[in-house]
Amino acid sequence: MISSPEKVAVAVIGASGYTGGELARLLSIHPTAQLVAVTSRQYAGQKMTKVFPSLRGICDLSFEEPAIEDICRRAEIIFTAVPHKTAMLVAPQILAAGKKLIDLSADFRLDDAATYEQWYEPHSAPEYLAEAVYGLPELYRDDIKKARLIANPGCYPTSIILALAPLLRARVIDVTTIIADSKSGTSGAGRGAVISSLYCEVADGFRPYKVGGVHRHIPEIEQELGKLHGSAITITFTPHLLPVSRGILSTIYARLKEDVTAEQIAGLYATMYGREEFVRLLPAGGIPATQYVRGSNYCDIGFCLDRRAGRIIVMTAIDNIVKGASGQAIQNMNLLCGFPEHTALAAPAFFP
Amino acid sequence: MISSPEKVAVAVIGASGYTGGELARLLSIHPTAQLVAVTSRQYAGQKMTKVFPSLRGICDLSFEEPAIEDICRRAEIIFTAVPHKTAMLVAPQILAAGKKLIDLSADFRLDDAATYEQWYEPHSAPEYLAEAVYGLPELYRDDIKKARLIANPGCYPTSIILALAPLLRARVIDVTTIIADSKSGTSGAGRGAVISSLYCEVADGFRPYKVGGVHRHIPEIEQELGKLHGSAITITFTPHLLPVSRGILSTIYARLKEDVTAEQIAGLYATMYGREEFVRLLPAGGIPATQYVRGSNYCDIGFCLDRRAGRIIVMTAIDNIVKGASGQAIQNMNLLCGFPEHTALAAPAFFP
Amino acid sequence: MISSPEKVAVAVIGASGYTGGELARLLSIHPTAQLVAVTSRQYAGQKMTKVFPSLRGICDLSFEEPAIEDICRRAEIIFTAVPHKTAMLVAPQILAAGKKLIDLSADFRLDDAATYEQWYEPHSAPEYLAEAVYGLPELYRDDIKKARLIANPGCYPTSIILALAPLLRARVIDVTTIIADSKSGTSGAGRGAVISSLYCEVADGFRPYKVGGVHRHIPEIEQELGKLHGSAITITFTPHLLPVSRGILSTIYARLKEDVTAEQIAGLYATMYGREEFVRLLPAGGIPATQYVRGSNYCDIGFCLDRRAGRIIVMTAIDNIVKGASGQAIQNMNLLCGFPEHTALAAPAFFP
Amino acid sequence: MISSPEKVAVAVIGASGYTGGELARLLSIHPTAQLVAVTSRQYAGQKMTKVFPSLRGICDLSFEEPAIEDICRRAEIIFTAVPHKTAMLVAPQILAAGKKLIDLSADFRLDDAATYEQWYEPHSAPEYLAEAVYGLPELYRDDIKKARLIANPGCYPTSIILALAPLLRARVIDVTTIIADSKSGTSGAGRGAVISSLYCEVADGFRPYKVGGVHRHIPEIEQELGKLHGSAITITFTPHLLPVSRGILSTIYARLKEDVTAEQIAGLYATMYGREEFVRLLPAGGIPATQYVRGSNYCDIGFCLDRRAGRIIVMTAIDNIVKGASGQAIQNMNLLCGFPEHTALAAPAFFP
Repeated sequence: MISSPEKVAVAVIGASGYTGGELARLLSIHPTAQLVAVTSRQYAGQKMTKVFPSLRGICDLSFEEPAIEDICRRAEIIFTAVPHKTAMLVAPQILAAGKKLIDLSADFRLDDAATYEQWYEPHSAPEYLAEAVYGLPELYRDDIKKARLIANPGCYPTSIILALAPLLRARVIDVTTIIADSKSGTSGAGRGAVISSLYCEVADGFRPYKVGGVHRHIPEIEQELGKLHGSAITITFTPHLLPVSRGILSTIYARLKEDVTAEQIAGLYATMYGREEFVRLLPAGGIPATQYVRGSNYCDIGFCLDRRAGRIIVMTAIDNIVKGASGQAIQNMNLLCGFPEHTALAAPAFFP
Repeated sequence: MISSPEKVAVAVIGASGYTGGELARLLSIHPTAQLVAVTSRQYAGQKMTKVFPSLRGICDLSFEEPAIEDICRRAEIIFTAVPHKTAMLVAPQILAAGKKLIDLSADFRLDDAATYEQWYEPHSAPEYLAEAVYGLPELYRDDIKKARLIANPGCYPTSIILALAPLLRARVIDVTTIIADSKSGTSGAGRGAVISSLYCEVADGFRPYKVGGVHRHIPEIEQELGKLHGSAITITFTPHLLPVSRGILSTIYARLKEDVTAEQIAGLYATMYGREEFVRLLPAGGIPATQYVRGSNYCDIGFCLDRRAGRIIVMTAIDNIVKGASGQAIQNMNLLCGFPEHTALAAPAFFP
Repeated sequence: MISSPEKVAVAVIGASGYTGGELARLLSIHPTAQLVAVTSRQYAGQKMTKVFPSLRGICDLSFEEPAIEDICRRAEIIFTAVPHKTAMLVAPQILAAGKKLIDLSADFRLDDAATYEQWYEPHSAPEYLAEAVYGLPELYRDDIKKARLIANPGCYPTSIILALAPLLRARVIDVTTIIADSKSGTSGAGRGAVISSLYCEVADGFRPYKVGGVHRHIPEIEQELGKLHGSAITITFTPHLLPVSRGILSTIYARLKEDVTAEQIAGLYATMYGREEFVRLLPAGGIPATQYVRGSNYCDIGFCLDRRAGRIIVMTAIDNIVKGASGQAIQNMNLLCGFPEHTALAAPAFFP
Repeated sequence: MISSPEKVAVAVIGASGYTGGELARLLSIHPTAQLVAVTSRQYAGQKMTKVFPSLRGICDLSFEEPAIEDICRRAEIIFTAVPHKTAMLVAPQILAAGKKLIDLSADFRLDDAATYEQWYEPHSAPEYLAEAVYGLPELYRDDIKKARLIANPGCYPTSIILALAPLLRARVIDVTTIIADSKSGTSGAGRGAVISSLYCEVADGFRPYKVGGVHRHIPEIEQELGKLHGSAITITFTPHLLPVSRGILSTIYARLKEDVTAEQIAGLYATMYGREEFVRLLPAGGIPATQYVRGSNYCDIGFCLDRRAGRIIVMTAIDNIVKGASGQAIQNMNLLCGFPEHTALAAPAFFP
């Protein structure tokens, strides 16, 4: 398939997972970008519709082996939807070929190679960390437009950073008291054939995992919260596994400085997000729910004050594979390419 | 809200149910139609987003009382998404006002008032039955384009009629042996507050209902199958309730005439549906699944021959509130208005 | 139905809800108690199996009108599984008749009528509050054995109080920092026909509710935590609605005093619960899940230390209608009657 | 663990799957049998509670390597819950050791080795086929009591054979018209780590599989139906995958001989099953549902006549891993050992 002259050619490296399928779904309705190549070692030679029958009649591509040089000849924008560690191996070649890279893995999200190594493993391309732009448009829109390497944020971090940014900038919470209790749908665990992701192990159940400060999204969250605040922040973060396919709901607690009113808080959010297309601020007392953002690129934000206990509770809902991954990646691509930011992302959520 | 000059103004009578919400979802991405009014006796005066928070930021309408005369002044196309019996009460007024009506209820689907009365109750507007066009575009496209009253098909009938049409026209099955075993998601039961639709009553369970030739979709199915065949047909139809929100899967059995090959069958389907945008024919042995049509207007069709028993098994999957209701209604509107048939309906299914 | 001489006769007032059905399920396998009457205004005269077909062949009772005087003649132990406010109206009559009452509502859980009135409404039988025993056997076993009025704990409170009791008694946490983030299955919302409990509104979704210190279980939780600690405690409590029928998972945060080790914490739990039949302490790092307690009377407890943030995270899983309601009520009945505490409660959880 | 003198020692070969876990669950409440050994090559050396945390505090066994000789020294009754082909390899050794074998695989269900080889693969122990008793107590109770090798029926066959037996014996249906449309929960696919069993692939979806006379349960079903009828029967059987963990609902169609009344049909079922403890006959028009048998050993049976089409529709609901596997195996063990048939199986279904 050749991209039409007026469309930007796009490739996805590692397209057989749920974020890869979601990139294909969203690109299929993109009027000015065209998916021209999808790679998968495991499924090379097979139609993409074998893995995603939902794309029948919509995407005719077959998976290819990830021949980066060849891919770079055919595409201008490349998404890497591969596990961390793999992305850093192909990034230098892609960038050297003059292509733009939007990496959905964790490999370029942390500024500091030492932190990466502490939480992940040795980094093979640390020289790109400084250049990589953290792809959260609500925070870094201008940098994203000019970037050539975008580190697409993690799903949990997106839900938590957007929740806290206005409060941190305004310095209205005690940053030593931040607790993020997050719940994610099972697609976040990927499409790997593991027992813990089986229907019978997940359905009709609920559990926390990686409790006690050990989930790898923590350094990413703390890095961004720290920048917003102006100094280092340590949080407690507990992820949980929901018996749903899509969605993250984060319930975030912090002690609120005295005398701050709900109206003031609402004002902080309105000031920061009032013009954002993909952040929906709920009215006072409004409570987000994952079913109202399903399939969409929205981040719904609500908050309540617990005056009895002196705390603010901020709640965010996103679709983990849209705003938490592939939708945000398309949003970043739109910014990079000068397309309207909502292109291919304007569809409402899908309920019920 | 005033419709822009270049957009067709559309209203939905009875918009607080799931099909009403789905009409609003689909119309929100329609470039040449605009939803200008939604009615609901129960929610009059309240924002539509109170019932469908998924539409926040997308639809700003409030529910109105169903003042038909007023609605007719503001809209050219009117959808009635009300229970049967209600639609027949408002249809004459809408048609008299020179508006086009697409009725999602059962009120105008049957050609014969006596049959309607046998399965439902007395009909108050039987003079419109002859004029009403059965809104299954794959069968009645040309009539739909010229209609002023479209009877949008039922969800089960859509899944069964599309499955059998090529076989009936080609007269390759024994029509006395047709059995349709259909399974529907819970949205088909509507948004009414009844115990049998509660999460705890439906989840993690499965059951048939209205077994033994008593479901009201039977006369509609038999009417259309009979027309395709050329004489009356009696079927056995068993609906079941699936613990999912969306989707209908019909498994349909019939004795196949001898010497008919799978290739011939495939040819019949290809001839009839090969150019249809919303019918996806699966390759030989391909088996449809509701999760691959979720949120889309597709009807996926597969078939298998059971040579041991001399039967054909045809399987169809649709989203009951898209191709089975609101999506098909938009498809009909597109035909009526001369818009490309897939307008607002091109988005792929939503998986996982 | 007459109770056999060697069995204690039991009645359930308000037996058409999920906790009523669960009492009948558990009593059906109880060798020394027999359910002799079930009441329901709504279903009076109908078989219990109409509401709970799962009990076909097991329970032959029909619902009766709640004629308390008559019920008291036939039963020794009476469970009230009615909404709060209703229980306090019938309790005096039951106690005056010399019967034992196990109330599953909130009416007798609070020691203080003023607190009850602040969170609920005026109390019509405040003179019984002092006498009522809070039916959490792990805390009040000896009192329960001698009680005539047992206030069966709420589901959320059970999951939170059991989690924190050892820490509060040992004074190892900062009680001003307690946050309980709890997630409950939908059966907790009852069997009422309300839109918010419909399958389509709950399935494939997740949401918080009653956020910000407004849920009525808060005074009950704080009362018991305060007693354990020795002075008043204010917590932040956020309930969430899970798309499952059964189960509560509470994730509870508190700042841990310095120098307390995981081994010491484990010791505190072992000391308090080591001999409890229905508390299962998970090994170090063990994480509870609702699917492993489903249908059982267990409370699984695990904890992790977040050394980076100086916090302890305690997690508990219960089945909200067993240990969180009807199972605990049977456990209390067993204590009252001198039966082995696990009678009818020994069945393992039900997985998958 | 040594079995107490008054308990029969039981072992499970291949106990890490869902049927193995269910055997352990049921045996834990069995007063006169004791599980003394569980084997699993994959998990040898690990606690059974690692795979089934639901058994914490209830089963303290660790998985062992399947050393048959050693197992035979310690157990009197041996369950093989292994894939087909594996059971036939160990059966001769177990029987030679004088032990009773209840095989949950398909290896000894077919009378005819040639049929087995046609649907499965070559049989290594065909000399035992004639001796093996098909373990459906409602049909073969007396033989089961005397057997030393019991072939525990398949889940789908149980649901279909019990449905049709009274009709076939009474010769009231046209046996050339039998169609069984069956729907099974996902536990039927086992605990293997395969993509098609992942939560995200199954949840919120529904699909047929192995359509067209190719599912391996067909010869087993047809063998037993043929015996009941007195001559060979060919059926059409279509299995479907439900998004639930447990449960099979079979909807079975056949043309009914003229002049047979519903009362006569009800009489046939009552005659055959009226005294069966685990068959619940629903009243006229009653419709079974999987949620009302969940976790129990019941088979619920209902039927409707479709007079318009001259058919009978019989519907059965079972829990696929209880009456469809492990519960029925325990029922067989009870018969073998002379225990009351319902021992450990008397608990009601688990709803919601």
